Amino acid sequence: MPFKKGDRVLLVDEKGKKFMLDLGERETLHTHHGIVDLTEIEGKEPGFVAVTHMNREFSVLEPTLVDYLQKMKKLPQTIQLKDACQIIAHTGLSNGKRVVEAGVGSGALTLFLATAVAPDGHVTSYEIRDDFANLAQKNLDGYGVTNYTIRRQDIYDGIEEHDIDLVALDLPEPHRVTAHAHEALKHGGHLFSFSPTIEQVTRLYDSLDRDLWVEVTTIECITREYEVKRTGTRPKTLMLGHTGYLSFARKK
Amino acid sequence: MPFKKGDRVLLVDEKGKKFMLDLGERETLHTHHGIVDLTEIEGKEPGFVAVTHMNREFSVLEPTLVDYLQKMKKLPQTIQLKDACQIIAHTGLSNGKRVVEAGVGSGALTLFLATAVAPDGHVTSYEIRDDFANLAQKNLDGYGVTNYTIRRQDIYDGIEEHDIDLVALDLPEPHRVTAHAHEALKHGGHLFSFSPTIEQVTRLYDSLDRDLWVEVTTIECITREYEVKRTGTRPKTLMLGHTGYLSFARKK
Amino acid sequence: MPFKKGDRVLLVDEKGKKFMLDLGERETLHTHHGIVDLTEIEGKEPGFVAVTHMNREFSVLEPTLVDYLQKMKKLPQTIQLKDACQIIAHTGLSNGKRVVEAGVGSGALTLFLATAVAPDGHVTSYEIRDDFANLAQKNLDGYGVTNYTIRRQDIYDGIEEHDIDLVALDLPEPHRVTAHAHEALKHGGHLFSFSPTIEQVTRLYDSLDRDLWVEVTTIECITREYEVKRTGTRPKTLMLGHTGYLSFARKK
Amino acid sequence: MPFKKGDRVLLVDEKGKKFMLDLGERETLHTHHGIVDLTEIEGKEPGFVAVTHMNREFSVLEPTLVDYLQKMKKLPQTIQLKDACQIIAHTGLSNGKRVVEAGVGSGALTLFLATAVAPDGHVTSYEIRDDFANLAQKNLDGYGVTNYTIRRQDIYDGIEEHDIDLVALDLPEPHRVTAHAHEALKHGGHLFSFSPTIEQVTRLYDSLDRDLWVEVTTIECITREYEVKRTGTRPKTLMLGHTGYLSFARKK
Repeated sequence: MPFKKGDRVLLVDEKGKKFMLDLGERETLHTHHGIVDLTEIEGKEPGFVAVTHMNREFSVLEPTLVDYLQKMKKLPQTIQLKDACQIIAHTGLSNGKRVVEAGVGSGALTLFLATAVAPDGHVTSYEIRDDFANLAQKNLDGYGVTNYTIRRQDIYDGIEEHDIDLVALDLPEPHRVTAHAHEALKHGGHLFSFSPTIEQVTRLYDSLDRDLWVEVTTIECITREYEVKRTGTRPKTLMLGHTGYLSFARKK
Repeated sequence: MPFKKGDRVLLVDEKGKKFMLDLGERETLHTHHGIVDLTEIEGKEPGFVAVTHMNREFSVLEPTLVDYLQKMKKLPQTIQLKDACQIIAHTGLSNGKRVVEAGVGSGALTLFLATAVAPDGHVTSYEIRDDFANLAQKNLDGYGVTNYTIRRQDIYDGIEEHDIDLVALDLPEPHRVTAHAHEALKHGGHLFSFSPTIEQVTRLYDSLDRDLWVEVTTIECITREYEVKRTGTRPKTLMLGHTGYLSFARKK
Repeated sequence: MPFKKGDRVLLVDEKGKKFMLDLGERETLHTHHGIVDLTEIEGKEPGFVAVTHMNREFSVLEPTLVDYLQKMKKLPQTIQLKDACQIIAHTGLSNGKRVVEAGVGSGALTLFLATAVAPDGHVTSYEIRDDFANLAQKNLDGYGVTNYTIRRQDIYDGIEEHDIDLVALDLPEPHRVTAHAHEALKHGGHLFSFSPTIEQVTRLYDSLDRDLWVEVTTIECITREYEVKRTGTRPKTLMLGHTGYLSFARKK
Repeated sequence: MPFKKGDRVLLVDEKGKKFMLDLGERETLHTHHGIVDLTEIEGKEPGFVAVTHMNREFSVLEPTLVDYLQKMKKLPQTIQLKDACQIIAHTGLSNGKRVVEAGVGSGALTLFLATAVAPDGHVTSYEIRDDFANLAQKNLDGYGVTNYTIRRQDIYDGIEEHDIDLVALDLPEPHRVTAHAHEALKHGGHLFSFSPTIEQVTRLYDSLDRDLWVEVTTIECITREYEVKRTGTRPKTLMLGHTGYLSFARKK
C-alpha cells in the first residue's frame, strides 16, 4: 500500500541510521548526508529509495514497534527491550492477557506490554506524576494502541483490578506492592519487577511469603553485540554492562 | 472458571516443581511427595490446593505458554525462550505479522512465534524431516494454536510466500537462505538466524549484500540467575554459558 | 636433568588428563588406559613417553605450580587461580613483598602468594582451625615453599605484623579485619577480600573510612572457555557463573 | 625510608586520581585541585599528605608495578593486566622461569613477565619495529628491571632460545610461530597467544598438532566492576566488553 499524507515513515540511510517522521508534517529532512525531499514519498511504496541532493540514498520503510520505541521521547532510565522481552519468556504474555503496571514513566514498557496482549488484552498503568502520565499518553496514542488505561493513582496504596495475569513493576520500592499484587493477581499469575540495584531485589524477596508465591527468581539479561568484519570477528569492545535485575514470582 | 474434564492443568509443588497433565487422562499422579488424587480437581477453581497422601501440597493452576513449552517433548537443541524473545525485541513482532520459519524442529519456536502474532498473523514453517514435522504438529495442536502451516519442503530450495514480516532460521546453513529470504520479505521486514557456532554467523554475513540489507547485527543473550537467600545474595555457581548467536538483518 | 627417585612427576595422557605422583612412592599407575610402569621413568628426561600395556601414551613432565594446585587436596570453596591472579593485576605483587593472609584454608592462596613474592618476600597466614592449618602446612611443604608462616591466631583479634604490602582475606566477615589491616599495612599497601556474596562486600565497604583508603573497588572475574573444533567455534555450553566478588582497597 | 631526590613517587588525590613523577624533575605539580609543592616531599615518609594551595590533599606513595604500568606511555592495544595475569594462572609462571615474547609493543607485557620471573628468570622479546623496541626499552629501564633482552628480529623467522618455559605472543599471525615455539620450549612448557579476533584463534588451532601439544584451551577473561554506594549496589553501567581471546597450549 503506497504511503499517504499522515503516515508515519522510517528513513534509513546506508549505515543504518534512522529517522522517523509523519508525512505532511514538513517538506524536507536535513541530514548529514544532504536534504531529503519528503514530498516525493507520498504515493510511493515501502522500499522506495529517496536520494538526497548529495546523492545519498535513504530507504523509506514502515516503522515497527521497535523503531517507534527507539525514536519516541523517553526518560533516561527506560527499561530496555532486551529486558522487557524476558517478561514474555517467563510469563508467556500474549493476546488477551490482563496486565497492571507501575510506574508508567515514558510509556515504553506500557506500549511493549499493550502490544504483546493486543488485540484482546489490556494494560492498566499506575502513575502519580502528571508529567510522566502525559508523556506516556502522548507516546501510546502516537503509536496508536488503545488497549490501555493510565490511572493517576499511587500503586503503593493498592491495586483496584482483579484477576490479573501480570503485575509489572519499575519502581524504587517494589516490596511495597507485593501484597497488593497478590490480591490483584489470578492464581498462576505473575509478578515482575525491574530494579537497578541488588538491595531492591533482596527487599522484594523479604516481602514474598513462600506460602503464597512460587517460581521466585531473579535474572540479569546481558546482550553481547558482535563485530563481524573482513578483518575478523569479535565482541564489541564497549558493552552495556548492567541495566537492572529482573525478578519474577508467581502466585500459587 | 472451574476445571473440567479435558482441561490441561499444572500442578506445582512447594519447591516449584511442575507437572502438566490433562484432566480425565488418568486418576492419580505419583510424585516423590506422594500420590495426588486427580479426580478431586474437576469442579475446583485455579489455585485449588491438592494434598497428597503424604500431606504435601500441590497448587493446581492453568498452564501458560511457558509451562507448556517447558513440559512438551522437545529436541535437545531447541532454541530457548531467553533467545526467542529477543526476536520480539529486535523486530517488534506482534499481532498480524506474517512469518516464515525453518526448520520446525519440535515446534517450540513455531509455537512461540505463532502465539506472538496471534490472532491475525500466521507462521509458515519449512521442514523436510517427517519425524520433526509430526512432532511439531502434535505440539502445536496440543497447545491449541491454529495460525500455522507446516510445509514439508526444503527452504534451501526457495520460499513460496511473499510480503513476509519475518524469516526466522534455525538451520545449519542459513547463508543458503539469504537470497530466498530477501525475495520473500517485505521492505523493512527482518531476517533472524540462530547459530550455535560463529562460523555459521560469518558465512551468513558473507551472504548479506549490504546494498540490500540494513541493521545487520549479531548478539548473544546471556541470562544470569541469582540466588537470594538469608545467607547472602550471589549469581548461581553454574550457568548456561552459551546457547547460540542471534543474527538479524533487515531488508532495505 | 633426568628424573630421579623422589622427584614429583606429572603424567599427561593424550586427552590432557593429568596424574601427579612422587617417583619411588609406588611401582605402577593404574589408569583407564592401562597400567604405567613407573620404574622406567627414573633416569629419563622430561618429555619421556611412557606407554601402558594397552599401548596408550603418557607424557612425563615436571609439574608446575598450577599442576600442583590442581592436584593437591583442597577444600571445596578454595579461591580459584583466575581470581587469585587478579591480586597481582591490582597490586603488582612481586618478589620481596610482605603479605598477611587469613584464613589459610587448604593453603592454595597461601602457596600462590608465597610463590608470587619468592624468593625474598614472605606470607604470614592466620588460621584458627587446626585441621586447616595442618592441611595447608602439608600442602605448602609438599610443594617446597619455605617463605611462609602459619599463625594459629584469630585475625579478627588483630594483626601482629607491620609495614605489610598486602592483606589478603578469604573470610566470612572481612569487615571485622579492616581496622587491623589498616594498622598492619604500609602506606600505599593493599587490602584484598574475596567474598562469595554481595552482602559481605557491602559490609566491607561500610567499614572502609574513605579518609583512610583510596582505590576502593570490587570486581568479578569471569572466564569464558571456548570450544574450537572442526565443526565450529563457540563458548562452552556450561560455564562457571560465579565464584566470588574480589574487593580491593589501598591505604592512603 | 624517606623520599629522596630521584625517587619515583605517586600522588593520589581524594578521589583516587593518580599522578606519577620523579622527585627533583620539577618543583610543582599543577592539578585541577591546585598546585602541589613537590620540594616539600623530599625527606618525608610514604603516606605524607601534600596540601595544595586550594587546600586539597594528595597522599604521596611509592608506586607499584601496576601504578607504573598505568602511567607509562603505552600503545592503544596494550594487553591489559586482567588478561596478562591469566598467564600466571595457567602456567604457574614464577621466579626463575625463562620466557620468550613477541612483539614487545610498548613493553607492558614484557615488564609484567620480567617482574613475574624476577630475580632469577629472564624474558627475551622479539620486535622488528625500532620505534616499539625503543619505547619498550625506555619503559623497562624506567621501571628498573634488568632481566630482559630485546631482540630486533622477526619471530616469524625463528626463535634462537631453547629450553624455554613460556612463549608469549601478541601478534597478528600467531599460527606462524607455533613450530618455532615448539622447538624453543622445554617439555611441559607453555605457549600463550593473545588475539582480538576469533579467526586468529582458529588459525592458531589449525597449526597445533595434537600429537605435540596438550592442554590446548582458549578463554576470555571478563572483569565486571561494581558500584557500591549508599543508594545501592550494582555492576557498572558501561563495561569493557572484549579485549581479546587468550589461548594456551603445552608442549608434550
